[in-house]
Amino acid sequence: MSTHSAPAPDPTAGAAVKAADRAHVFHSWSAQGQIDPPAIAGAEGSYFWDYDGNRFLDFSSQLVNTNIGHQHPKVVAAIQEQAAKMCTLAPGFAVDVRSEAARLIAQRTPGDLDKIFFTNGGAEAVENAVRMARVHTGRPKALSAYRSYHGATNAAINLTGDPRRWASDSASAGVVHFWAPFLYRSPFHAETEEQERDRALRHLADTITFEGPQTIAAIILETVPGTAGIMPPPPGYLAGVREICDQYGIVLILDEVMAGFGRTGRWFARDHWDVTPDLLTFAKGVNSGYVPIGGVAISAEIAATFDQRPYPGGLTYSGHPLACASVVATLTAMEEEGIVDNAAAIGEQVIGPGLREIAERHPSVGEVRGLGVFWAVELVRNPETREPLVPYNASGPANQPMVDFAAAVKRGGLWPSVVMNRTHVVPPCTVSAAEAKDGLAILDEALAVADAHVVG
Amino acid sequence: MSTHSAPAPDPTAGAAVKAADRAHVFHSWSAQGQIDPPAIAGAEGSYFWDYDGNRFLDFSSQLVNTNIGHQHPKVVAAIQEQAAKMCTLAPGFAVDVRSEAARLIAQRTPGDLDKIFFTNGGAEAVENAVRMARVHTGRPKALSAYRSYHGATNAAINLTGDPRRWASDSASAGVVHFWAPFLYRSPFHAETEEQERDRALRHLADTITFEGPQTIAAIILETVPGTAGIMPPPPGYLAGVREICDQYGIVLILDEVMAGFGRTGRWFARDHWDVTPDLLTFAKGVNSGYVPIGGVAISAEIAATFDQRPYPGGLTYSGHPLACASVVATLTAMEEEGIVDNAAAIGEQVIGPGLREIAERHPSVGEVRGLGVFWAVELVRNPETREPLVPYNASGPANQPMVDFAAAVKRGGLWPSVVMNRTHVVPPCTVSAAEAKDGLAILDEALAVADAHVVG
Ligand SMILES: Cc1ncc(COP(=O)(O)O)c(C=O)c1O
Ligand SMILES: Cc1ncc(COP(=O)(O)O)c(C=O)c1O
Repeated sequence: MSTHSAPAPDPTAGAAVKAADRAHVFHSWSAQGQIDPPAIAGAEGSYFWDYDGNRFLDFSSQLVNTNIGHQHPKVVAAIQEQAAKMCTLAPGFAVDVRSEAARLIAQRTPGDLDKIFFTNGGAEAVENAVRMARVHTGRPKALSAYRSYHGATNAAINLTGDPRRWASDSASAGVVHFWAPFLYRSPFHAETEEQERDRALRHLADTITFEGPQTIAAIILETVPGTAGIMPPPPGYLAGVREICDQYGIVLILDEVMAGFGRTGRWFARDHWDVTPDLLTFAKGVNSGYVPIGGVAISAEIAATFDQRPYPGGLTYSGHPLACASVVATLTAMEEEGIVDNAAAIGEQVIGPGLREIAERHPSVGEVRGLGVFWAVELVRNPETREPLVPYNASGPANQPMVDFAAAVKRGGLWPSVVMNRTHVVPPCTVSAAEAKDGLAILDEALAVADAHVVG
Repeated sequence: MSTHSAPAPDPTAGAAVKAADRAHVFHSWSAQGQIDPPAIAGAEGSYFWDYDGNRFLDFSSQLVNTNIGHQHPKVVAAIQEQAAKMCTLAPGFAVDVRSEAARLIAQRTPGDLDKIFFTNGGAEAVENAVRMARVHTGRPKALSAYRSYHGATNAAINLTGDPRRWASDSASAGVVHFWAPFLYRSPFHAETEEQERDRALRHLADTITFEGPQTIAAIILETVPGTAGIMPPPPGYLAGVREICDQYGIVLILDEVMAGFGRTGRWFARDHWDVTPDLLTFAKGVNSGYVPIGGVAISAEIAATFDQRPYPGGLTYSGHPLACASVVATLTAMEEEGIVDNAAAIGEQVIGPGLREIAERHPSVGEVRGLGVFWAVELVRNPETREPLVPYNASGPANQPMVDFAAAVKRGGLWPSVVMNRTHVVPPCTVSAAEAKDGLAILDEALAVADAHVVG
């Protein structure tokens, strides 16, 4: 058996796993009676497999978190060693792996963001970053972008700018949404990147003026919006936001939960534009989600606010030793094995050129964009009008074209990351050129399904 | 070396861990410039130790989470095996250990609370329970108790009834606080348990009437409030709350994050009073925090609400395989080794009688109360007036008596759980009678420090 081939099928075992799942597991974001969760038996590198003999090339990195691939042996070994030594300890103590994980993260974060507050995941990171900004400034409001996702706890979901916010929306959460740049569907009727940048900055500045700068604690932005469509900002946009924040004493939070730790071919997405936030949130890629962890990197100035005054936040598992050990092993392996550079190279040499070729062949592909192993393929019904292949937030029959497309991709042996009218190309940062090419070939074929819906 | 003795001291290593901690780790609930986190080298069973040769009997179970003790070999082995097999997988799949963890939890939850939504910890469990109640009822408000702790994300901290809420309090969070029973400091001027129960129920019913029953989605209560002081409710109180909820179609959420999974000498604290909530939140003891996990057990009726309608919540690590494997191993070991019964026996035979004796000897002990391995010792300056040894939320010099008491306990080799004017006696559920007696003897001696502050 090659390391990447699935073991012998065992459909009976798979059926039992699925039956117990349906009896007892309540799934995220789903109508429980309408889902049929595939039972998965194992995973390794860029692949995972089910109990029926199907193996999938993972172009989703699960929820864009397994940057180091599945079951990296060094991270697995580190978890096993730490488990034998010390699984858990309260946040109030100093622990070797906790200190070391914080040090390795702080080494990579920009500027003086050298203090690390650990959480269990991305939503809690965002919750705490916004709390830090509110307490630091004494101001109530946070500004965030439409076309964003920041997590599902109360503050995080209210900051989010996608339909998942609606059910939990609280008109009084102190959040104001603005429009960030997205040239392909420009909210500002721009025709060039420069126009889009300038108009987006003008829109943000105007929004702040009319909200009242002295009421605004923070602006939170995904450095490269992820779930919302992987839109790298035009050059100069983030620097412009930084300037606006400085002008008004507003805390700039860059949410790198999805974009951070190699995804864009740099340690952090912000490295591409060299803009330093006051707070940076992370999770996912920091340890590829092998053990739940996330956190906030904090500037010296904001940390100083909590030097003599207690920071009003915490959680039982802050700085969890087992999770921290997996962070240390992950960052060390990524460094040793040049995994971030691999992500950059695959993006530049394989995925970028490959997707641009695909775009030329398929009328349903309106745009491809991205960097590193972080790409979006925007599917349209009409390339002229850019009408999306399915409407915003479609479900049921209206969403059928994307359902059919995803099914075709899976039949080809690729597990895609499909969001609304897009497929995101987000393999692990460890993906090989051959694997990336395989995956693109499967997408290429499946796009015939989308092309069939193109009109005009 | 006995299994419970610390390895040879290594103060140099300890100093390095601490230096890196101070440089890079931002700690929960703390003024970062005022803390000196002890560096901890290892832990096993009921003990942990530092780098200087000091070993502590753990009467805190860290943050009341290591119910199975430190480094239980079966749980460690299960984590190591699962790490080798599959560390992580997205929530949308069915996974053997995820299904099995959910099944084992559902087996122990009361009534038809058979569907399990997994989170990373307690706060996220509470966030999701309240969201479920709000969507299920279509009503906006949640009622929670003063003297409570429900977590630190935005909805959870607003539900909390202790000073940690204040910095994040949002007057518009849709939360109304009421008073739950606490005979020793009765909010209702009651003199007997029956009075306290009846008056507390009347107070709750009146509050609901004046808030408007049709505006209230949920009542959330810790079955036995934990951080707030470990107050077992008077017999009949929870049944009365259940009746009120039924009368008005209000969802009853019991928060068993701290009280659940053996802490009270039963699987769930609610088992003592046989009251079945609609939603039950858990974390901590479900796997003793060896890997971060928590969740919500959901009644059939509420689960049905999300059968054809998507549940509007989720998180990247819901049903994390490594965490679920540790849940399976923890629950299995607890069952096989009679750990829940041990907690009950230690409470009845050692801690209860031992603390009552201590109370007789020490004028500073106003009351002892609890069950299982979940006890509070209420320290007072004046046994007649019941004036607390230190004021509510004291800090600085006002809090010095408790700081001195805690220092004396630690000098004795015991790690206490000190909250305001109380010390909580919350060892692992696996604590032996001999260990429990050792710990009580250390408390007994240290209480001289508290006695010295008693007046009148
Ligand atoms: C940018 C961003 N922020 C926050 C989150 C929330 O993270 P979690 O699911 O770990 O709570 C996500 C998750 O996808 C994300 O992409
Ligand atoms: C009753 C209760 N609910 C919720 C929480 C929050 O749990 P976490 O710290 O895992 O977010 C706690 C933590 O102590 C708790 O005791």
